[in-house]
Amino acid sequence: MNVFVINSGSSSIKYQLITMPEAKVLCSGLVDRIGLEGSKVEHKSFLPQGEVKKVLEIPVPHHSVGLKEVAKLLTDAEVGVISDPSEVEVVGHRVVHGGEKFASTQVITPEIKAKIKALFPLAPLHNPANYLGIEVAESIFPQAQQIAVFDTAFHQTMPAQAYRMAIPIELYTEKGIRAYGFHGTSHKYVGERAGEYLKKTDAKLITIHLGNGCSMAAVEGGKCVDTSMGLGPMNGLIMGTRAGDIDQSVIFYLVRELGYSLDEVNNLLNKKSGMLGLTGFSDMRDISKLYHQGQSEAILAYQLYAYRIKKYIGSFAAAMNGLDAIVFTGGVGENDQLTRSLVCENMDFLGIRLDSDKNKLPNNGLRAIQAENSSVQILVIPTNEELEIARQCFGLG
Amino acid sequence: MNVFVINSGSSSIKYQLITMPEAKVLCSGLVDRIGLEGSKVEHKSFLPQGEVKKVLEIPVPHHSVGLKEVAKLLTDAEVGVISDPSEVEVVGHRVVHGGEKFASTQVITPEIKAKIKALFPLAPLHNPANYLGIEVAESIFPQAQQIAVFDTAFHQTMPAQAYRMAIPIELYTEKGIRAYGFHGTSHKYVGERAGEYLKKTDAKLITIHLGNGCSMAAVEGGKCVDTSMGLGPMNGLIMGTRAGDIDQSVIFYLVRELGYSLDEVNNLLNKKSGMLGLTGFSDMRDISKLYHQGQSEAILAYQLYAYRIKKYIGSFAAAMNGLDAIVFTGGVGENDQLTRSLVCENMDFLGIRLDSDKNKLPNNGLRAIQAENSSVQILVIPTNEELEIARQCFGLG
Repeated sequence: MNVFVINSGSSSIKYQLITMPEAKVLCSGLVDRIGLEGSKVEHKSFLPQGEVKKVLEIPVPHHSVGLKEVAKLLTDAEVGVISDPSEVEVVGHRVVHGGEKFASTQVITPEIKAKIKALFPLAPLHNPANYLGIEVAESIFPQAQQIAVFDTAFHQTMPAQAYRMAIPIELYTEKGIRAYGFHGTSHKYVGERAGEYLKKTDAKLITIHLGNGCSMAAVEGGKCVDTSMGLGPMNGLIMGTRAGDIDQSVIFYLVRELGYSLDEVNNLLNKKSGMLGLTGFSDMRDISKLYHQGQSEAILAYQLYAYRIKKYIGSFAAAMNGLDAIVFTGGVGENDQLTRSLVCENMDFLGIRLDSDKNKLPNNGLRAIQAENSSVQILVIPTNEELEIARQCFGLG
Repeated sequence: MNVFVINSGSSSIKYQLITMPEAKVLCSGLVDRIGLEGSKVEHKSFLPQGEVKKVLEIPVPHHSVGLKEVAKLLTDAEVGVISDPSEVEVVGHRVVHGGEKFASTQVITPEIKAKIKALFPLAPLHNPANYLGIEVAESIFPQAQQIAVFDTAFHQTMPAQAYRMAIPIELYTEKGIRAYGFHGTSHKYVGERAGEYLKKTDAKLITIHLGNGCSMAAVEGGKCVDTSMGLGPMNGLIMGTRAGDIDQSVIFYLVRELGYSLDEVNNLLNKKSGMLGLTGFSDMRDISKLYHQGQSEAILAYQLYAYRIKKYIGSFAAAMNGLDAIVFTGGVGENDQLTRSLVCENMDFLGIRLDSDKNKLPNNGLRAIQAENSSVQILVIPTNEELEIARQCFGLG
C-alpha cells in the first residue's frame, strides 16, 4: 500500500510517499514559502539507481498549486516513483489538534472534517493549515482514502489529575479548556520503540522530544500519563523561540506596566523567547558552538534549557513513582550531545548515569548511552513521525 | 527588647508584640475590614492571669485609625501589656516584594522606603499596603526603630538557572523580570527548624508552605535553590482561590475566543480559581469533609492539589540531586492529614513513605511522620512568620 504522508503548515507542505508494510520511503520533499516570495518545491526520490533531487523554483501562490506540482513529480519521467497518481491509495494527514473528540486516527469523512474545523479556535496556527491540506489532497488524489492522525491523540489516555487545570469547572465542561499535549505521534513512536527494546510492556518511560518545538511525556505501559504541553503548544520546555512555562504574572506585568498589547505578548512568548531570546540564536548548533567558546549567554541558555528538562524528569518520575528509561528524540535530542550531557548531570539520585563515551556515538539508530551502574536506561531513538503516520494509516486503511 | 510585628495588607493589619530574645508573645491581633463596612479590631493579650480578648467593633476608615486603636490597646487598663508606647523598641514590618534590591532584612531609612516604593509595580496588591503600614507605624511609634523583613529575601540565593526565564535578556536586565519567590520568611523559619532537628547543616530539604497562598522551596544547606512562585505570587501550587501554574495559552484563549478582558482573566486566576473554582469552596476543611463524603468534585480537587505538590517534590529532588526531608507547614500543611497522605502516596521511588498513624498526631509542634523504612524524613513544622520577623529584627535591631 502506498501512503502519501502530508504535514501541511501555514506556508509549507512536507510530504513523504511510503510503501507499507515495508516502510520503504519512495520519495520525500517540501513545498516551501507558499504564498510568499521565493517559493519552491524541494523533492527527493529514492530510485533503484540512487537518490535523485529536483528543486523547482516556481511561484506557489496556494497549497493546491504546490500539491499539484508534487503530484506531477510523483509520476515525473526523471524522478517519478509511481506511474499514476491513483497508485496513492491513502493520504495520511498530520492534524495538530484533535481536542477531546479524537483519541485515535480517523478515516476522514465530512463529519470528521466538520469536527476538525470546530477545533480551529484551539489551534489557530495549525488546524486551518492542516484542514487546507486535506481539502487540497481530496481534490488531487480523489481516489485515495484520506486519514487524519492527530498530534494530541496519544495524550488522551492522561488521567484527569494530569489534564485538568485548577480553574472553574465550567471552563472545562463547557469550553474544553484542559491540557491536550502535542507531538503525540513522536512520543508514541519512540515510546513503542523503547518498550520493544526494553522488552518490558509496563515500562515507565519519559520521552523527551527536542526539536524546534519541545515537549516531554510520561509513558507508563505504553500509555501517556502526563505531558509538558497544555491547551496549546507554547508551555512546558524551553524551545527555539518559545519560552515554555512562564509565570502568568509576567504576562500581566508586560501589559500593565510595560505597555505591551496582548498580541505583542503572544508574539514575544512564541517567536522572540526561548533560546533566541536568551542568545540571539534559535538553532542549537549555533548555540552549542558559542557554549564551547565560553560565551556567557550561551552557557546560561543551555543551563536553563537543561534545568527545565531535569525538573520535568523529576516531576514525571514522581508522577509515575518510578522510572525505567528516559528517551531523547527529535533533532536536538538525537544530535546534541551537550544537551544530553547537561540533562543527565547530577541525576544519580534518580538512578540516571550517563556514559560520556556512548553519548558521543553517531546518530544512526537506537542506542543506549547510560553507564553500567545506571539503574535508568538512557536511550536515544531517532523519531519518525511520517513513518508513524503511515503505520497508523496502514493499520486503518 | 519588645518587637511589634506588623503584617499590613490592603484592608487589614495583623500584629504581634513579642519580647526578644525570650520569644514571648505579649499580645496579638487583627484590624480587619479597614475602609469597609463591619470593620473591627480583634485583640488578644497573654496576661499573667491568662488570655484576655477584646473586640472593638468600630469604624476603621484608614490604617492609621486602626493602628492608633491598637496602640491604645497595648497600654489599655484591662488588656494592656506595656505601660507606654515607647516600650515598643522595634517595629518589624513584613514587606512582600524586595525585588533584587533586598537579600536581607533592612533598617528602614528614607532610601529604603524609596526602594520599597519603586517595587510597587512588581507587587501592586501587597507592597503599597506594606508601605502604608510603615508610614503609619512611623507616626504612631516615632521612637521605635522600623525594620523591613522581605518575603522574597530568602529566595535571593537561587542560582540563575532557577530564577531566570526564557525571555529576551533585556526584560531581565532592564525590567527585572525574573522569579523572586514568596513566603520566604516561612520557608526560612521551617527550613532552619528542620536543619536543627536533622542535625545536618548540608541537608537537602523541600519546604511546603500550604496556607491560603501556597508555595514550595528547595533548600540546600540552609539556602534556597529554587521555589515555585515567580515574579508574582500567582503561579506554582494550586491555592485556595489561585490557579497556580497555568499554560499561557489559556490566557490568550480566554481573551481571544471567550471575550474576557485581561483584568477579568487576572481576577479569574487570582480569585475564582484554585480549590474554589474546582469545588465552590476555598477552605480545605470544607473540602476535606466533602472528600470524605465521596463528592466527586472534592475528590478531583484534592487529586489535582496533591498531584501538583508531588510533581514539584520530584522536580526539586532532581534540582538538588537528592532529598533528606520534606517539610509541611502553613495552616493546611500543619493540619490537613488528607493532603499529607495524598502527597506522600506512591512516592517510595523518591524514598518517601508516610506512617499513617503518625500522620494523625495533633498539631502541637514539630513532628516526624515518616515510616521507619522511609529514607526521606517527613516533617510537620508549625510555621511562625511573626516570630521569624521578630528574630531577624532582634538580630539587627
